[in-house]
Amino acid sequence: MNIKDALPAMEGPVCPVPLHHAEQVVMGHGSGGKMTQELILSVFMPRFECGPLAAGNDFAAVGLPNPAALKGQLSISTDAHSVAPLIFPGGDIGKLAVCGTVNDVSMGGAVPLYLTASFILEEGLSMDVLESIVRSMQASAEEAGVQIVAGDTKVVERGKADGVFITTTGIGWIPEGRSIGGAEAQPGDKVLISGDLGDHGIAVLAARGELGLETAVQSDVAPLNHMIQAVLAAAPHTHVMRDPTRGGLATTLNEIAQQSNVGIILEENNIPIQPAVQAACEMLGFDPLYVANEGKLIAIVPAEEAEAALKAMQQSKYGEHAAIVGTVSSTPVKRVLLHTPMGSNRILDVMAGEMLPRIC
Amino acid sequence: MNIKDALPAMEGPVCPVPLHHAEQVVMGHGSGGKMTQELILSVFMPRFECGPLAAGNDFAAVGLPNPAALKGQLSISTDAHSVAPLIFPGGDIGKLAVCGTVNDVSMGGAVPLYLTASFILEEGLSMDVLESIVRSMQASAEEAGVQIVAGDTKVVERGKADGVFITTTGIGWIPEGRSIGGAEAQPGDKVLISGDLGDHGIAVLAARGELGLETAVQSDVAPLNHMIQAVLAAAPHTHVMRDPTRGGLATTLNEIAQQSNVGIILEENNIPIQPAVQAACEMLGFDPLYVANEGKLIAIVPAEEAEAALKAMQQSKYGEHAAIVGTVSSTPVKRVLLHTPMGSNRILDVMAGEMLPRIC
Repeated sequence: MNIKDALPAMEGPVCPVPLHHAEQVVMGHGSGGKMTQELILSVFMPRFECGPLAAGNDFAAVGLPNPAALKGQLSISTDAHSVAPLIFPGGDIGKLAVCGTVNDVSMGGAVPLYLTASFILEEGLSMDVLESIVRSMQASAEEAGVQIVAGDTKVVERGKADGVFITTTGIGWIPEGRSIGGAEAQPGDKVLISGDLGDHGIAVLAARGELGLETAVQSDVAPLNHMIQAVLAAAPHTHVMRDPTRGGLATTLNEIAQQSNVGIILEENNIPIQPAVQAACEMLGFDPLYVANEGKLIAIVPAEEAEAALKAMQQSKYGEHAAIVGTVSSTPVKRVLLHTPMGSNRILDVMAGEMLPRIC
Repeated sequence: MNIKDALPAMEGPVCPVPLHHAEQVVMGHGSGGKMTQELILSVFMPRFECGPLAAGNDFAAVGLPNPAALKGQLSISTDAHSVAPLIFPGGDIGKLAVCGTVNDVSMGGAVPLYLTASFILEEGLSMDVLESIVRSMQASAEEAGVQIVAGDTKVVERGKADGVFITTTGIGWIPEGRSIGGAEAQPGDKVLISGDLGDHGIAVLAARGELGLETAVQSDVAPLNHMIQAVLAAAPHTHVMRDPTRGGLATTLNEIAQQSNVGIILEENNIPIQPAVQAACEMLGFDPLYVANEGKLIAIVPAEEAEAALKAMQQSKYGEHAAIVGTVSSTPVKRVLLHTPMGSNRILDVMAGEMLPRIC
């Protein structure tokens, strides 16, 4: 998760103050949940605090030296990728590295333009594997319409990495006048999700051959920038867009509820989850609302534009199963409630610690 | 080394065609020498080829959607850092990650503006070590005058990384009309180096406690952007700037000779090397001209501006020992010659394979 995702916790119950100060990094620090927020708030934010970080989005909107001559802003985002295994049903670390950053950089309404890619390779990595990873990076970059304009390669000794790690950084262009971000949700807004939840996390977990999990589920990893532009054309007053990656829908909506100082009510019946994912989650004791996605878009839009946004999603590649899943409310502030078919309400908190390590 | 650094090899003797196609990644693929070029040319370039890459510099100068409104270009550069040990005399992986990218992004005459930082952390890493690394990143970013505007954190299991890997990406602004790059060297130009060579590589190697090497040498890791602006103010027609990192001065000048289709004649007597580095290299059988630097600037400028550029370097922080070390010639084309005190000439080729692994 990006450093800036953790910011809402600075003012909310998600990350208690004083922060718990760990002595060592543990796996939970990479989970995207509370422990990641604690790590970021106690170690990174005190050093890196600045305006673009404080905006708390998945992108950094930054000016240029001669703003008078410019009509818009740059959007910049970076992600390190360490998924295991390197290749999984529906994708590989290369496709994930390109799509993950294309999606983050696009979430402010930016048109993604350029990517950089840095590789840390483990001695002994098969060249065939590396080439197939690079090929899928190329294919994803072409689909998204971005150029990979800079790169770097390092190699470490056998046993000092895990095949290959890939860090991608994206630069996009936000047209003048756009103001889309996690702090923009308004009571009355509708919450849309672009399709079935939990596919990526389950597909990667199954690919590890652990837990005796056998399933035909494929990762949903995909570039969402074209869908985002279609949604913005149909719903020009969209308030928030974010992709529910590590921590899943529940964690991402908690971040938004924190940033916007609102409540979010979800209708469980309306949340699309494919049966194979539901079955796998029940077998493993997971809640699919906390399982990572890599090709899904959350859009929070004014009620009057919700149907148009939904249709735009459904008519986009990767949006066939899009649905309106909830509503933004003034209460309970900074909370996400799940309204169940039986009429009960369940609080969806931020995921604590780790759930599925190494899934992105 | 950046993907684009390898480009000159496409047309020169450095990287023979057909390329040797390795079956596995070996340490030499990360060396910055011929094997790195082979890896890049055989695996990455066929997929990532594009204009900014083809320019063959340490930065990607990229346009924006409305160039008519702009007076200049963005400069973008990325580097993964995997130095071992994490902390060494004169710096640590954090200082290296900030300075290395600040320097690369500045080499086209850009003013560095923004950095992103992605961390891959090994489970079990000491939090104190991580905090000291982040502190030195902050200090280096403040000295350079850049903002770290986006970041990401991943954690991998114990034994799947080596403490911490840091990938930084930099974005800078190149004022209109600047045309500085590895292909711009002209016969008659003077070659300047901003100080003593080999300090970083020797300091890191000594810090490993291997080879029984004991020395007081400190890494030269430093941000060079302020020196670069001072040189450009004094020598506005500067043709080439580059930092001699992996592969050292000899490898970097070979890249430039290739790109500019010129020869470069070095005067061995004029090349600044501190005695402790010379002694360590003799003991280890290294040539300091191939040892990595992390705070040195190569500038290639018209002869009439050479003295002004030299004075600007010498008056800059980190430039006290700057010297004019060579001349660009029309022959031998794409070669670097070392003119020795005894009057002989020695060809300095690109370093083959690896010399010092994990030094950046």
